[in-house]
Amino acid sequence: MKAGVIGATGYGGAELLRILQSHPTFQIESVYSSSQQGKSIVDHYPHLTDIVPMTLEEIDPAAIAQKLDIVFLATPSGVSSEIAPLLLKEGCTVIDLSGDFRLKDINDYEDWYKKKPAPQEWVDQAVYALPELNRSSIKDTKFISNPGCYSTATLLGLAPLVRQGLIEEKSVIVDAKSGVSGAGQTASFHTIYNELNENFKIYKVNAHQHIPEIEQMLSSLGYESPITFNSHLVPMTRGIMATIYATLKSDISQEEINKVYNDFYEDEPFIRVRKNGIFPATKEVYGSNFCDMGISVDTRTGRVTVVSVIDNLMKGAAGQAVQNANILFGLEETAGLHFIPVYP
Amino acid sequence: MKAGVIGATGYGGAELLRILQSHPTFQIESVYSSSQQGKSIVDHYPHLTDIVPMTLEEIDPAAIAQKLDIVFLATPSGVSSEIAPLLLKEGCTVIDLSGDFRLKDINDYEDWYKKKPAPQEWVDQAVYALPELNRSSIKDTKFISNPGCYSTATLLGLAPLVRQGLIEEKSVIVDAKSGVSGAGQTASFHTIYNELNENFKIYKVNAHQHIPEIEQMLSSLGYESPITFNSHLVPMTRGIMATIYATLKSDISQEEINKVYNDFYEDEPFIRVRKNGIFPATKEVYGSNFCDMGISVDTRTGRVTVVSVIDNLMKGAAGQAVQNANILFGLEETAGLHFIPVYP
Amino acid sequence: MKAGVIGATGYGGAELLRILQSHPTFQIESVYSSSQQGKSIVDHYPHLTDIVPMTLEEIDPAAIAQKLDIVFLATPSGVSSEIAPLLLKEGCTVIDLSGDFRLKDINDYEDWYKKKPAPQEWVDQAVYALPELNRSSIKDTKFISNPGCYSTATLLGLAPLVRQGLIEEKSVIVDAKSGVSGAGQTASFHTIYNELNENFKIYKVNAHQHIPEIEQMLSSLGYESPITFNSHLVPMTRGIMATIYATLKSDISQEEINKVYNDFYEDEPFIRVRKNGIFPATKEVYGSNFCDMGISVDTRTGRVTVVSVIDNLMKGAAGQAVQNANILFGLEETAGLHFIPVYP
Amino acid sequence: MKAGVIGATGYGGAELLRILQSHPTFQIESVYSSSQQGKSIVDHYPHLTDIVPMTLEEIDPAAIAQKLDIVFLATPSGVSSEIAPLLLKEGCTVIDLSGDFRLKDINDYEDWYKKKPAPQEWVDQAVYALPELNRSSIKDTKFISNPGCYSTATLLGLAPLVRQGLIEEKSVIVDAKSGVSGAGQTASFHTIYNELNENFKIYKVNAHQHIPEIEQMLSSLGYESPITFNSHLVPMTRGIMATIYATLKSDISQEEINKVYNDFYEDEPFIRVRKNGIFPATKEVYGSNFCDMGISVDTRTGRVTVVSVIDNLMKGAAGQAVQNANILFGLEETAGLHFIPVYP
Repeated sequence: MKAGVIGATGYGGAELLRILQSHPTFQIESVYSSSQQGKSIVDHYPHLTDIVPMTLEEIDPAAIAQKLDIVFLATPSGVSSEIAPLLLKEGCTVIDLSGDFRLKDINDYEDWYKKKPAPQEWVDQAVYALPELNRSSIKDTKFISNPGCYSTATLLGLAPLVRQGLIEEKSVIVDAKSGVSGAGQTASFHTIYNELNENFKIYKVNAHQHIPEIEQMLSSLGYESPITFNSHLVPMTRGIMATIYATLKSDISQEEINKVYNDFYEDEPFIRVRKNGIFPATKEVYGSNFCDMGISVDTRTGRVTVVSVIDNLMKGAAGQAVQNANILFGLEETAGLHFIPVYP
Repeated sequence: MKAGVIGATGYGGAELLRILQSHPTFQIESVYSSSQQGKSIVDHYPHLTDIVPMTLEEIDPAAIAQKLDIVFLATPSGVSSEIAPLLLKEGCTVIDLSGDFRLKDINDYEDWYKKKPAPQEWVDQAVYALPELNRSSIKDTKFISNPGCYSTATLLGLAPLVRQGLIEEKSVIVDAKSGVSGAGQTASFHTIYNELNENFKIYKVNAHQHIPEIEQMLSSLGYESPITFNSHLVPMTRGIMATIYATLKSDISQEEINKVYNDFYEDEPFIRVRKNGIFPATKEVYGSNFCDMGISVDTRTGRVTVVSVIDNLMKGAAGQAVQNANILFGLEETAGLHFIPVYP
Repeated sequence: MKAGVIGATGYGGAELLRILQSHPTFQIESVYSSSQQGKSIVDHYPHLTDIVPMTLEEIDPAAIAQKLDIVFLATPSGVSSEIAPLLLKEGCTVIDLSGDFRLKDINDYEDWYKKKPAPQEWVDQAVYALPELNRSSIKDTKFISNPGCYSTATLLGLAPLVRQGLIEEKSVIVDAKSGVSGAGQTASFHTIYNELNENFKIYKVNAHQHIPEIEQMLSSLGYESPITFNSHLVPMTRGIMATIYATLKSDISQEEINKVYNDFYEDEPFIRVRKNGIFPATKEVYGSNFCDMGISVDTRTGRVTVVSVIDNLMKGAAGQAVQNANILFGLEETAGLHFIPVYP
Repeated sequence: MKAGVIGATGYGGAELLRILQSHPTFQIESVYSSSQQGKSIVDHYPHLTDIVPMTLEEIDPAAIAQKLDIVFLATPSGVSSEIAPLLLKEGCTVIDLSGDFRLKDINDYEDWYKKKPAPQEWVDQAVYALPELNRSSIKDTKFISNPGCYSTATLLGLAPLVRQGLIEEKSVIVDAKSGVSGAGQTASFHTIYNELNENFKIYKVNAHQHIPEIEQMLSSLGYESPITFNSHLVPMTRGIMATIYATLKSDISQEEINKVYNDFYEDEPFIRVRKNGIFPATKEVYGSNFCDMGISVDTRTGRVTVVSVIDNLMKGAAGQAVQNANILFGLEETAGLHFIPVYP
C-alpha cells in the first residue's frame, strides 16, 4: 500500500518515515512539505541519507488521492484544519496527528487552542482513535484523529480506574512531564538549548490544550468532572511521564488494583504493566510504541498514584498513527511496530 | 569566627566550602572526613585548587570543641546521629544537614528512614530551622537541624495558604522533581550517568522520608492531614521544583492569592514571588539561596497550583545552613549568601 | 541459527539482544551471566519486558557448544581471555567483543591493558574483523575478535588516505570523543551522573588501549608510524566522533579527496560519506550501524581533517559483531541491521 | 566607578551583570539594549529579580560618556564595530567583547568574519588584552578588545611552549570543544534543544574566525606558522576545552615541561596548572575566572598534549573583561572575580 507523509520535515514526520520505511505493508511513496518543496529530505535530515532519498513535493490533493492509499498529516495545529478537508474531499484516507480534529465541540478548540477551528462537518467525521480504549471505532473509517501525546499517557493510565468506577469524581490530578521534542522545531528564545539544558520548567499552567481532549475521552469512559493537569519540560529529547493522582472510592488493596490493571491490559501488545512495587522510567520505552505503567496505592491518604510513560514521538504520535493505520486496514495491529526500546 | 565542616567531601560539604570561603564572618578553619582523613581536599575536588588548600582531618570532638565556634555536619543520615551527640556533649554549636534530628517522633524516623534513630534526648534539643517560617526559634540555640531539600521547597510553597487557612484538609498533593545531586555520591548501577541521562524517573513512590518532615511542620502551621507526595529524578545536576496542588476552601481570586503570597514574603530576602502569570524555572535560582514561586488559581477545578523552586544544594542544604548560622549568631541573615544565580 | 549472548547484562549485551531479537536468521536461544545467573534479564533491564523473557544461565562451555551455533562474548577485557578458550576448545563459533584478542603481540596487551594477556595460541587464531577493511578474512573462521569502538571510527576514517598513500608518516593525530555508554556499568565516583553531566573530560591521555590496536591495523594498511590519539568523555550516552588530522603528501584538492572517499566506500552499505562541506554529527547515526564521514582539506596548513562518527554500541560494538557474524555464515551482510537512526 | 553594559540581554551581558553586581569598585549604573529598550531586564532574565531592577535604555553615546566611567560592549560582531567608534569619539572608556577589533589586519576580518570590518583607525587604537600574556599594554588605555573564548584557552595553553621556543613550527593542532552558550541566543533550527542534546557536532571546520586571532598573538609570541584549529559543540551550556597538540623540538621530559608551565604561571591568580598526570575537566572552572591546565609529553610520538579549560562566559568573556577593566584602572586584578567554581 502506498503511503505519503505531509509535514515530513517535522519530528513527527521523521518518526513516521523511520517506522514506514520498514513496514511490511505500507511503503513510503511521497513526502510533502508546504515550505520546503523541491528540497531533498536528506538536506534537512542527514540521518536519512541512503534511506529516504526523496524530494519534498508540493501538496496537491487531487494527485495525492490518485496516487496514495493513505496520507499521514504530520502538520501542526492550525495547518491540518486547512489541508485535511481538501484531502478528504478528494477521497483520501487521512490520519491526522495534529490537535485540529480531536475536540468534538469546536468552541472548546477555540478556547484552548486560541485558533480558528476546523469546520464542524469535518470534525464530526473524524474518529478519535486510541486503540486500547476504542479499537472498534477505528476499523473502516477514512479519517482518523490521532490522540495527543499527553492525552495518550494520561488516558491509558486512568482508563482501568475509570472504567471500573474505582475513583471519586473531582479527584484526578495529572502532573505530566515531557521531553523537549514535543515542542517540535519552533525556534525561539524559549526553545534554544541554553534555555532548556540543566533546567526544569512548567508551562501552560492549568491551560494545556490537551486538557479538554482528556476530559472528553474520560467522559465517554464514565468520569464526568474536570481534571487538574499540568505540563513540564524535562531536559531530555524524548519521553513523557504522567504521574496521576486520584482518590479511591473505597478501601481497595494494592493487589486488587494490580489485578484490575493486569486484566484490563492483558491482551494489549503495547501496554506493559510493571510488577508490584516497580515503576517505569521514560527511557524504558525510548524509540518504541510501548506504554509502560506502575501503580501505587497509598493507604495513608486513600489515593492511588499511577505512573504512565511513553515515547512522545512513538505511542504519543507516529507509532500510534501507524497502529491506527494498521487497524483501519485490517492489518496485524503491531505490523511495523516491533521496535525494541533503545537502551541505554 | 572559626567554622568547620564534617563530611567535606560530599556535595553538601563542597557547597558549604564555596559559601564559607567568602563569608564575611565565618572562616573555614578545618575540614573533616570519616573515610578520607589525611588526604588533601583538592585531591577529591580539583575545582578547589588554590582555594581550599586543606587536609582532611580526623573527627575528634574534644579538639573540635576547643578550636571551632561552629560545626556544620554534612554527613549522611545514619552518620550524623552518631557524631552530633559527641560534639554536643563537648559543647559545640552544631548545624546538622542530615535527616537524623528532624523528626520529633523517633518512631517516625525508624518507619521512614529504616534506620536506627538518634537518641530521643538529642532529638528533643534540636531546633528544626526553616527561617522564613520559624525564625524566632533559631536564635540562641546550639543545635540546629537543617530542613530537607524537598521539605524546604514544599513548605515555603504551602505556608501562606496554610497559615491563612485557605485550603481544605486532605487536599494537598505535591509532585516534586529534583536534579541528581540530591542523591549525593553514592555509586551504584542506579546513579551512573548512563542510567539517568535522557531519562526521567520516579522513586520512593509514596514513601519519601521527607513526607513526615513536611507533615510535622504543616501541622504546626495548622494543616493536620497527611499529604500525598512524590519525588522524581530529572536529568540535571541541580534544582528542585515542587508542583503543589490544593483545593481552595472558597472562591478566592488569583489577585487575592497573589496578595497573600506577596504580603507573606514581603520582607524575606530569599523569597521571590513571580508576577501574575509567570512561573519560575529551576535554573533561575541555580547556585543561589533563593526560593522562587509562582501561583495559579484554576477556577475550573477550584484548586490552586503553587510552583516552588530552589537549588537543592543551596536553599535546600548548605545555603540554608549558613542562613541559619547567621541567625543563630545574630549576624546579618544574608551575610555570605549574596550569590546571584548562574545563568545560563 | 541459535545464538547466545554471554555478558547479556552489560550494555553491549543489551544491544546484541536488541539486534538479534529481530534478526531474520539468528535467534536468541540463551543468555548468560557470570554474576547474575538465575535472575530474569527483565529484572536488570525492564525495557526488555515481554520481549526477551529469559533467565540468565550459568556459563557451561560444553552445553553451550551442544546447543548454540554462535556465541557472542560481551564480557569485559580480562574476562573474555578466560572464557573464550574454554568455548573454542568445545568447538564453539565465537565472536568476542572485548579487547582481549585484538593485539597480536601479547606484550602490547600487557603494556596497554595492564592485565594478564590471553594465551598466545588463541590470540593467534583470532581474526580481527573490520569488514570494510578485511572482509575476506572473516568468512569461514570460527573465532572473531571484534574491533574497539574508537578503533572502528578512526580506522574507517583513515583507511582511504592510508591505502592511497596520501598522507605523511608521523603526521596522524586523532582527537576522539565518546558518549559515556562506552564506560559500561562500572559504578564509581567517576561514573556517577553528577560528575559527568554538564562536564567535558579528557581521560587516559596518550594512553588509551585502542592506540596499539589502531596502529596494528594501520600498519597492515601501509602506515607504519605511531599515532597521537586522545579520548574524551562527552555528556551524552551514545556516539563517538573521531576528528582526525594528517598532513597530505602533496597538493591534493578537496574534490580529489572527496572522490577518493566516495570510490573507496562506494559499495559499502554502512558507510555514508557526506557531500562536500557537510560534516556528520553523532546523532545522525544514533542506534544504527552506520559510520558517517566528512572530509576537509585545509590548504593553509596542508592538512586534511576527517570527521568520522559511529554509535559506539552499534558499529562500535554489537552492530559490527552481528555484521561479522553475517559475513562469517555467508548471510546477507546487512541482515538484521537495517536500523534507521533514531532522530531526534 | 560607574559602569554600563551595552547588550545586557545577551549571555555575555548577563554574566557581566553577575560579576559587576558584587564588584567592590564598579557599580552597574545603566544597562542598554538596541532592541529591547524600555523593557525591564527582569522581564528577559527573571533570575535577576530583586537584583538588577533596571530598565534597558537606549544607546546614547553622549549621555553615556557623561554618565559612565566605563562601558562594556557585549554586543555581537558586526554591531560593536558601529557602536564602539561612537562611544570612543565621545571619550568613553570601552571594553569590547566582540571580535570586531581583534584583528589588526581588517582584510583578515573580512575574510574570516564575512562582514564589513570596523574602520582601520579604530582597530589601530584597540588594545588586544590577554592579561597573562600582555598585561603591560593594558594599563592606561581607553579601548580594549577582549579576546575570544577559544583564543583565550588556546593561547594560555600554548604560551609557555612558544615563549620558551620548545615546539616546532607548523606543528600546532588545536582541537577545541565548547558548551553551547558560546552560540548566544540566536534562535534557529540549529540551536534548538532537540538538535543539540545527546549530540556532538563539529562546526566551521578549518574556518573558525578565532584562527587568525590566535595566529596573530602566537606570532607576537614567536610562533610564525598557521595552525590547524577545529571547534566542536558539546551538549552542555558552559565550558571550553582546548586539546592542543604540538611537536617538541628536542627530547624534553615531562618534569621539565611541568616546570616550564609552573614557572610561567607561578604568579598568575587565575591560572592553575594541575599536578603531573592530572588533567582538568571543564566543570572544575564552572562559573569562575580560572584557566586550568594539564600537560602530557608523549615520548612515543615526540609530541606534547596540553589540555586547557575555561568557562567561556567568564575567562572566555565577561570575567576576562572585568579583569582587564581592573588592570586598566589600576585596581587589584582579581577584584570582584573571586568566584569559586560551582561544583557539581
